[in-house]
Amino acid sequence: MRDLEAVRALDAADPLAGFRDRFILPAGEIYLDGNSLGPAPKAALDALRTAAEAEWAQGLIRSWNEADWFTLTDRLGARIGRLIGAAEGETVVCDSTSINIFKAVQAALALNPDRPVIVAEGDGFPTDLYILEGIRSLRPDLEIRRAEAGGPTLEYLLDDRVAVLLVNQVDYRSGARRDVAAVTAAAHAVGALVVWDLCHSAGVMPVDFAGSGADFAVGCSYKYLNGGPGAPAFVAAATKHHGRMRQPLSGWWGHAAPFAFAPDYDGDPGIRRMLCGTQPILSLRAMEAGLEIAEEADLAAVRAKSEALTDLFVEAAETLCAGHGLTLASPRVAAERGSQVAFRHADGYPIMQALIAAGVIGDFRSPDILRFGFAPLYLGYADVVEAVDRLADILETGRWKEPRFQKRAAVT
Amino acid sequence: MRDLEAVRALDAADPLAGFRDRFILPAGEIYLDGNSLGPAPKAALDALRTAAEAEWAQGLIRSWNEADWFTLTDRLGARIGRLIGAAEGETVVCDSTSINIFKAVQAALALNPDRPVIVAEGDGFPTDLYILEGIRSLRPDLEIRRAEAGGPTLEYLLDDRVAVLLVNQVDYRSGARRDVAAVTAAAHAVGALVVWDLCHSAGVMPVDFAGSGADFAVGCSYKYLNGGPGAPAFVAAATKHHGRMRQPLSGWWGHAAPFAFAPDYDGDPGIRRMLCGTQPILSLRAMEAGLEIAEEADLAAVRAKSEALTDLFVEAAETLCAGHGLTLASPRVAAERGSQVAFRHADGYPIMQALIAAGVIGDFRSPDILRFGFAPLYLGYADVVEAVDRLADILETGRWKEPRFQKRAAVT
Repeated sequence: MRDLEAVRALDAADPLAGFRDRFILPAGEIYLDGNSLGPAPKAALDALRTAAEAEWAQGLIRSWNEADWFTLTDRLGARIGRLIGAAEGETVVCDSTSINIFKAVQAALALNPDRPVIVAEGDGFPTDLYILEGIRSLRPDLEIRRAEAGGPTLEYLLDDRVAVLLVNQVDYRSGARRDVAAVTAAAHAVGALVVWDLCHSAGVMPVDFAGSGADFAVGCSYKYLNGGPGAPAFVAAATKHHGRMRQPLSGWWGHAAPFAFAPDYDGDPGIRRMLCGTQPILSLRAMEAGLEIAEEADLAAVRAKSEALTDLFVEAAETLCAGHGLTLASPRVAAERGSQVAFRHADGYPIMQALIAAGVIGDFRSPDILRFGFAPLYLGYADVVEAVDRLADILETGRWKEPRFQKRAAVT
Repeated sequence: MRDLEAVRALDAADPLAGFRDRFILPAGEIYLDGNSLGPAPKAALDALRTAAEAEWAQGLIRSWNEADWFTLTDRLGARIGRLIGAAEGETVVCDSTSINIFKAVQAALALNPDRPVIVAEGDGFPTDLYILEGIRSLRPDLEIRRAEAGGPTLEYLLDDRVAVLLVNQVDYRSGARRDVAAVTAAAHAVGALVVWDLCHSAGVMPVDFAGSGADFAVGCSYKYLNGGPGAPAFVAAATKHHGRMRQPLSGWWGHAAPFAFAPDYDGDPGIRRMLCGTQPILSLRAMEAGLEIAEEADLAAVRAKSEALTDLFVEAAETLCAGHGLTLASPRVAAERGSQVAFRHADGYPIMQALIAAGVIGDFRSPDILRFGFAPLYLGYADVVEAVDRLADILETGRWKEPRFQKRAAVT
């Protein structure tokens, strides 16, 4: 990978190279944190300006109809649904991932009422477990079984007492990737329903929600879908569960006739039953551009480039940074990981701060993880090599030891 | 009120007149729907542009720290807290009103665990009742007592089996206003906790949350607080309940140490325990300008002008539109209503459409309510008279009978 000619040839032959120009990327920086917050599509800023200055300021209340604000949840959901392989009408955009986990797990529990166990990953993104704790606080008979690193696997924990399996397609730290179809089949084999957390996979790899027979999925739109900071999340439910599914956040947007203002709740017969209250329109309006771009790209090509970028990064880092204490914390085989790579280092925090100061934006995850995301729509192969060159320089010079890199920020 | 000189004199003497210039108001229109969606503060559009073009597009992930995105929930909450008379650290901004009702009622139930009854208004905004139905779906022993029009009052339904009273300060349709201190005292007298829904009062009248001894409050920020379409809601909890309060939407933003990524939930000891997941930053960034303006205004002066504006509207409408079938559906005494006025009319829907076409923006609420909101920060007395003149013209000419005004929009 030190052969820059070969790397440049990869960029020259990249069928996705044209997408880079659709995003704003700060000059001189290499952004390897699109797995945490995707960059701004140029068209998103235009849409947001229209939403604020024309729709809100001039259209005012009329824009609920005239700018079709009320169906944004459905229209954006339809776009995400196509990206995750859901069938039509199976996906809506709303609320946060945490809240959508609550809804989806509650809906799954209600469909499997005689079973008292939820299985989840012990090292998944913590909010998944926190929300399960919240659900258990309402139903003390529930047992939450966690698959811990080094302990029994998720599949081993499945039995005929399990109502719901909550599982991430891609682990937020290690990037380890699960097989959606196989895990879903294993859960179904014991009569459990599955809720997939797609936060770290939606938009950057094929998911095949419908084809795998999965029951529910949730995920966020501000990572590889480039929807904007904190943009609302999505929730998908298989058509087979519509009509029968129930979730307790039964707000007026999930009503079959929200503008009848009837005193009794009569839930929408379809996916809109997963909605609850009024959604943040400005954030929703900024979201569409990123989804449009993602839909234009061939997801198989995105995945192929993602594997190539992460392979190149691992190879380059292990070569150029050899002897500096970096240990790969992601699966070595590209097919087994998502679009991110993690390395452990005891001084991970200051090293990452020094790297950011050098214009390579990754992030740090407690206690010792340097995490790098590779978004194929705006990253090239030469970027990857340049990023590793800068990392190697920081390790070789020991520049990360400077006092300014030691101070912990509030948000890591 | 036909004495235009007198009306103009009121505007000339209005101590709040200067605030109008802080908002964008479409030319030639009179906006009487700020009780549904407030207009855009000019500074909100500037802030949104900065948030999108500088903070998101250039700052990227760093803006969580450098633009202080992570504490927006608290900083905006502190501003709203001051407007509703909450003590410091009692209010956060997050999620939707519906979801915050769920959290607040669940927290109140958990603080009053041996009581099986919730009391609510039968004709309050329906989402309040829908959320209570959702809560009951999780705890079938709960009884929900509704105070229906013509039936026993809310106060009559309170007894020593009541855990929680959920009540609106101002009714969304009639505008009828309740006395927060008196209702809170009545609930406390039987040992019940109170959750106030302030959607139709926050920002347009003093609330005195802390002084009244109320337990919880929720409300939205896109009406009189002018936070932008669907802007996130707020939730307040009295300090006396912090530490002990529990709510089941226990997502990572409510954790005492969210960036420790610990596997077990350890809720924040203060109001942040009411947070759940990641918030829509662009919508939050648009919200601050409206709150700043509201904080600059003297709320007592706002309330005094609100009463005067609604009095003028009722008087003018009953005089100029006499004989056309309008019936006042709001309390006649200004002190007993919020900042809105409702009239019933069997042909309310097409009349409102014709009025909107004539540049007076109110709204229609099923089945027969013409609803008008009066926001003292950007409405003048002459606006009120002009609005009634246009309404009278529509009724006198029967122009509302034109076919184009009969078609129902999706969102009313």
